[in-house]
Amino acid sequence: MKSSKSSCGVENTLRIVGAKWTLLILHNLCDGKRRFGQLQKALLGISPRTLSLRLHQLEKDGFVTKKIFSEVPLRVEYTLTPKGQSIKSVINTMKKWGLSRE
Amino acid sequence: MKSSKSSCGVENTLRIVGAKWTLLILHNLCDGKRRFGQLQKALLGISPRTLSLRLHQLEKDGFVTKKIFSEVPLRVEYTLTPKGQSIKSVINTMKKWGLSRE
Repeated sequence: MKSSKSSCGVENTLRIVGAKWTLLILHNLCDGKRRFGQLQKALLGISPRTLSLRLHQLEKDGFVTKKIFSEVPLRVEYTLTPKGQSIKSVINTMKKWGLSRE
Repeated sequence: MKSSKSSCGVENTLRIVGAKWTLLILHNLCDGKRRFGQLQKALLGISPRTLSLRLHQLEKDGFVTKKIFSEVPLRVEYTLTPKGQSIKSVINTMKKWGLSRE
């Protein structure tokens, strides 16, 4: 990501969070930690494979932390890192704009 | 668009401007009117077909106005409508966030 950084902030943002579902996953995590199944339930229409891929990428990019609890059944929780929290400004502006649309 | 409006502002925003290239087209138009060729040149990698489809959708949704000047060669210019201008708040926040990313 760093090496391909563009001088255009909008392009950078889209490269990081522009993939389908990514912003909605982050939006869901804004309210606190979520388990995989909770995210899948909240994001109507997402396939487990896509959710898994997106979460993996977000973890790799440092936006999300995955925590595994060795319980039966296995509990896996995702939370936003401080870097992930920073996207809230973008999400809030989109939320406000989206709600203002007729 | 209206009939499928979601109660979630972020989802609404993504439904309106979430298609690949759409935000970058709007971003380009923020600086003023643009001809088709100018947009194509600015959006490196976009196909004429995709640019045409996106502009058509933006026109249909009331974000962009198309003006045709009967000159030779034909001049076609695109500008943001007041509704289109309102997306600037989203674009500016994305720009700021994108530039703050390392």
